[in-house]
Amino acid sequence: MNPRRIALAGVILGLCSLLSFGALAADAKVKKSATDIAIGKECVACHMDDNPGLVGEWKKSSHAKQNVDCYDCHKATEGTPGAYKHREYKGKPNFITTVVSPKVCATCHAKEVDQQQPSHHALGGQILASLDNIMGEVIGGPAAVTAGCLQCHGSKVALDANNRPTPQTWPNTGIGRINPDGSLGSCSACHSRHRFSAAQAREPDTCGKCHLGPDHPQKEIYEESKHGIAFAAHKEEMNLKSKKWVVGKDYTAAPTCATCHMSATERQEVTHDVGERISWTLRPAVSVKLNMVRTDDKKAYDLPASIALPQVGDTYKGAKVVEVVTWEKRRKAMQDVCTACHTKRQIEGHYKQFDDVVELYNDKFAKPIAAMMGELTAKGYLTSAPFDEKIEWTWWEIWHHEGRRARHGAAMMGPDYTWWNGIYQVAQRTYFEWIPQMREAVRKKDGNEAFADALLQKYFKPIEGHDWYFNGISKDAIEKVRQGYEDRYGKGALK
Amino acid sequence: MNPRRIALAGVILGLCSLLSFGALAADAKVKKSATDIAIGKECVACHMDDNPGLVGEWKKSSHAKQNVDCYDCHKATEGTPGAYKHREYKGKPNFITTVVSPKVCATCHAKEVDQQQPSHHALGGQILASLDNIMGEVIGGPAAVTAGCLQCHGSKVALDANNRPTPQTWPNTGIGRINPDGSLGSCSACHSRHRFSAAQAREPDTCGKCHLGPDHPQKEIYEESKHGIAFAAHKEEMNLKSKKWVVGKDYTAAPTCATCHMSATERQEVTHDVGERISWTLRPAVSVKLNMVRTDDKKAYDLPASIALPQVGDTYKGAKVVEVVTWEKRRKAMQDVCTACHTKRQIEGHYKQFDDVVELYNDKFAKPIAAMMGELTAKGYLTSAPFDEKIEWTWWEIWHHEGRRARHGAAMMGPDYTWWNGIYQVAQRTYFEWIPQMREAVRKKDGNEAFADALLQKYFKPIEGHDWYFNGISKDAIEKVRQGYEDRYGKGALK
Amino acid sequence: MNPRRIALAGVILGLCSLLSFGALAADAKVKKSATDIAIGKECVACHMDDNPGLVGEWKKSSHAKQNVDCYDCHKATEGTPGAYKHREYKGKPNFITTVVSPKVCATCHAKEVDQQQPSHHALGGQILASLDNIMGEVIGGPAAVTAGCLQCHGSKVALDANNRPTPQTWPNTGIGRINPDGSLGSCSACHSRHRFSAAQAREPDTCGKCHLGPDHPQKEIYEESKHGIAFAAHKEEMNLKSKKWVVGKDYTAAPTCATCHMSATERQEVTHDVGERISWTLRPAVSVKLNMVRTDDKKAYDLPASIALPQVGDTYKGAKVVEVVTWEKRRKAMQDVCTACHTKRQIEGHYKQFDDVVELYNDKFAKPIAAMMGELTAKGYLTSAPFDEKIEWTWWEIWHHEGRRARHGAAMMGPDYTWWNGIYQVAQRTYFEWIPQMREAVRKKDGNEAFADALLQKYFKPIEGHDWYFNGISKDAIEKVRQGYEDRYGKGALK
Repeated sequence: MNPRRIALAGVILGLCSLLSFGALAADAKVKKSATDIAIGKECVACHMDDNPGLVGEWKKSSHAKQNVDCYDCHKATEGTPGAYKHREYKGKPNFITTVVSPKVCATCHAKEVDQQQPSHHALGGQILASLDNIMGEVIGGPAAVTAGCLQCHGSKVALDANNRPTPQTWPNTGIGRINPDGSLGSCSACHSRHRFSAAQAREPDTCGKCHLGPDHPQKEIYEESKHGIAFAAHKEEMNLKSKKWVVGKDYTAAPTCATCHMSATERQEVTHDVGERISWTLRPAVSVKLNMVRTDDKKAYDLPASIALPQVGDTYKGAKVVEVVTWEKRRKAMQDVCTACHTKRQIEGHYKQFDDVVELYNDKFAKPIAAMMGELTAKGYLTSAPFDEKIEWTWWEIWHHEGRRARHGAAMMGPDYTWWNGIYQVAQRTYFEWIPQMREAVRKKDGNEAFADALLQKYFKPIEGHDWYFNGISKDAIEKVRQGYEDRYGKGALK
Repeated sequence: MNPRRIALAGVILGLCSLLSFGALAADAKVKKSATDIAIGKECVACHMDDNPGLVGEWKKSSHAKQNVDCYDCHKATEGTPGAYKHREYKGKPNFITTVVSPKVCATCHAKEVDQQQPSHHALGGQILASLDNIMGEVIGGPAAVTAGCLQCHGSKVALDANNRPTPQTWPNTGIGRINPDGSLGSCSACHSRHRFSAAQAREPDTCGKCHLGPDHPQKEIYEESKHGIAFAAHKEEMNLKSKKWVVGKDYTAAPTCATCHMSATERQEVTHDVGERISWTLRPAVSVKLNMVRTDDKKAYDLPASIALPQVGDTYKGAKVVEVVTWEKRRKAMQDVCTACHTKRQIEGHYKQFDDVVELYNDKFAKPIAAMMGELTAKGYLTSAPFDEKIEWTWWEIWHHEGRRARHGAAMMGPDYTWWNGIYQVAQRTYFEWIPQMREAVRKKDGNEAFADALLQKYFKPIEGHDWYFNGISKDAIEKVRQGYEDRYGKGALK
Repeated sequence: MNPRRIALAGVILGLCSLLSFGALAADAKVKKSATDIAIGKECVACHMDDNPGLVGEWKKSSHAKQNVDCYDCHKATEGTPGAYKHREYKGKPNFITTVVSPKVCATCHAKEVDQQQPSHHALGGQILASLDNIMGEVIGGPAAVTAGCLQCHGSKVALDANNRPTPQTWPNTGIGRINPDGSLGSCSACHSRHRFSAAQAREPDTCGKCHLGPDHPQKEIYEESKHGIAFAAHKEEMNLKSKKWVVGKDYTAAPTCATCHMSATERQEVTHDVGERISWTLRPAVSVKLNMVRTDDKKAYDLPASIALPQVGDTYKGAKVVEVVTWEKRRKAMQDVCTACHTKRQIEGHYKQFDDVVELYNDKFAKPIAAMMGELTAKGYLTSAPFDEKIEWTWWEIWHHEGRRARHGAAMMGPDYTWWNGIYQVAQRTYFEWIPQMREAVRKKDGNEAFADALLQKYFKPIEGHDWYFNGISKDAIEKVRQGYEDRYGKGALK
């Protein structure tokens, strides 16, 4: 524990009752030294003149009500990363830091930070450490990475000679920010400063800062879904400022992103590990179900369901396994949320429809195309460098953009995203862009068109869904559709 | 009338005053047998434990206030489609159904269901019985149709061996759902269960569950329009929970989708036939004005304005014509809504601008391209199968996506959709994708480039708007634009 | 001053206190002749029957409270442009005008109109006087220009034989409408009739009528940004109906478009010249910083920072320069708004990140491509006509759509727009569409592929960011990325 945390923790009066829900700050006034109180007052007074909006927001916060002021969070110990002198008090310099990291927040909100540190969110900055980043840095440009990618993923906050964050790395509220003190993430990504409101974090727009757009339009999907429609219609009944905010109890009008992924039910506590209830990963080219392993060094690891799981007590990545959460258990946790408002059949039907879309995407499109891309590279038809050939961008958009939209659409009941923005585009692009580009890449290299044909024969032909590509949409196929529809709608139903 | 309906209707006390607006449920408490009351209480008690959000929403509904509970709607007669045993009461099994169809809702809301059954909405499931569905089933995949198309259009609810809806067909709140009892549609598509709120159905987001996205972005267009801006700014003045909700009387701040297409004016009653006030169909490749014929078997038929109309009293499709609503009459019904807030000149100007865009789209792009597609197929340059050639997708997106966006944009005053998302894309795609692909299709088949030229000469050349394609953007044309603008803005205005 | 204005001004009682903020109408009841009062009452009574929504909105307006009714704004002098007879009073005809122009509004709101008349907004109609308009008129079609472009930019309102606006040019609330009386713009573009609410004009949706979509998604960017998230969460605390609406004082929850671009701070008054605080123009193909010159004929001119500035007192465009506002001064005005809620480092960091994106876009993509397009045209590889070759559409979308999205995304902190909808698309399109199309244009014309190579060597080769294109994404380049990330995240971080 760094000296700063000890200092702040030291001034907290009495025992915090260890409630299942809620955090210390909301339960007890913070007490501190006369000096700290006086410095804090000076901060407030001066910034009230300079930045009245900033201080005004803080005044509305729980922090203000609990006596937690600027200095409590920004105070720093000389010599620690990011600490710099900012004015003085009674002849002694004040040291503060611009960056308030989760480590600082943990002084009062330890439980939440312990959940957040090993989460997928906190690791957002490390996701950038992949070849994909070449797309941003090399093909786009560093400035676009700074103002684009890193504002969501988080960057490593760099300090200048005066220990202040550099303008290239600050402002930055990326969810996976790498802080000067080594902690990961940014609580203010969701609990915007200087109000730090839990209510705001429960609103879908908060998540929409990053979860939107061509590659993962969760916000748009939510807004299309029955859930989002109900939220828009009944927001004033959502009881968003409620402390515990238990679905089915404190509110019934609609779920938000937070409801399903984080917040409390009558049987589950709130969690700040946002991936805990997720059974499929819809992120990669091919979706897999994910088990999770938690170790006693407060880390967590997602493992594909195909990989053998360590057991509680085993050593994993140099630490002891303390919990194994299978994908089935994660799914049950999510279904427990559904149960607050839906009966079993509804939930099972939803998951069936969702699983079917993921498997359609995986099996008909993603797996065979990924395998063919591998063969094309292995045989030298494509270079091993990423993104230097058009077909690589085509495949990228099939899985990273359109395929994700389909999968997320099905996960969250946004039919337009499942179909028009999803599988419709995956299919169109596969048949009318990827295949021609694949043929062209082979033709250009050595004219061995038989190889291109063989690839398709090997990977697409055995899949029933591709039959029309090889045999045409035959009269039989049209007849089959006709028959199906006549069974449903009566004779002559098919125009 | 099925026994279930008779039973529920039978327990309703007294006479329902036949008000022009509003439905029985809102006017009188429902009375029922002691057994049904007791069973209903058990439903509520048990599901309050299991699904508190579901029951909580119902408690806020008009249904709860009127004494209509779970059992009143879900009660079923043994042996009828979808009826299954669910627990028992005093040793006798209770039969219920999962699917609550419009036929059930009609027990109390007969007038609304009578309007809804013959509507375009109720027929949403039959639209799938078209060749276009091959795109979904064959080229996309059945799972994408289930979680995509059918969640808006509605599917036929299939029952398993235990008379419960299969997970592939449930959940389903598609507007044209085909129910086990043969009725069409789903009231909860708009009146979301279990609140069944009229207020929510009046919100644009409700319609936006399906009316959004690349092929018909009505929600986005509305949000851009003056109407949507006013709604967002003054939602709290919209009096959405008002019973009659007459525009200009109960609210003046803004119209929503419901205002224009369904709700009451001082001269018109609310209608649950959403197409009643629509004079153009903007759905198909080529827009036509639509007359409507209503027959005494409670059906309705849209007929293009070019087709001779039957008269009241004639036999049509085996039934007697009871009403003929011309497109002019439909338009007048819509303009009556406009009149609540706008004067005549404003309304006429709007319709002039709207008609002009539809005709520009029809005459410059849709009709000639459709004719050329027909010739290409007739001459064997294209197969008769749909969607197996890239140019078919191009034409599809011109009319089904971009051309609709232009037409809907003009209909609802969203300039960005009329131009950037609409005609701009129609034009660019026509000249720089469709024409080159047409030439390529001909070249590939037999190299008869003269045929491609002749097609364009026959269909595009006579149209003034295509002159630039054949003769270049001549200095004269540029000069004409320059002149027009200098007349407006003064000499040298054209850079 | 036209006689109408004199007439209305004449009936205004007493002196208006010249407050810094606010307008006359809000401060004093308007007095007028008994005849005008009587006529006004007749207008209201009759239109209350015919158009209750219109009158109902007016009744909620400040106008109604201040005794300003239909006749005060629509009254016109016989023989002036747009004046026509509409009913009579005591045997004498009333003359009114449909179009209420800023000149009319200036009767009471002179200060606001004086700011608005020389603004970029008021000149929206003149922007159409460019070659780009050929795209709309010639390639799209006049009807699409009317219902599309002109509904935002504004058109010249044409009058029919009866002095009423033609249906092609009315309705029109385009921001740069050219009115029959020669004044520019439409106050109701933002202050929607007939409520004319300042509160509504402060909402982001109001600006979103035009500032959205593929070519300038300011609304979408705002909604993604921390600013928009905070607005959505705390709208009820925004005090939108406050008269002065000073940021940091009257509200602290969030800024809207108006806050930053128009509204008051503790040090700045509200301005209706919306470009006053803008230092970069992000509109053209290549962004430049803009100085502004104001002259004593109430005009304003934006001058690129590269052009020598006239001094106060100089003659410029036939008038005397009364103010020179450098881009630095404009930026300081904007930063003053930021300061209400943010400290200096945050603001500097934001501008650094923003400037870097604009310069990346300018220097890596826009300038060299623009130069190559020029050479291609000069050498006859492209015609001088706009939009008749596919590469011209490609370049158009790079700068007009995608490049703007990147720049606006960075300006307003919408990371998705900076990257996925911005630079990602600029880069992909440049390398995989523009370059191949450029090579194809050269090949088709004379097969001089060396010229195409030479172009790229001349314009792209010297730019470091294009190195990968010429030398491949070398192992060194990948290694460099790997190294950078290993420095940040530790060994083996790069998968």
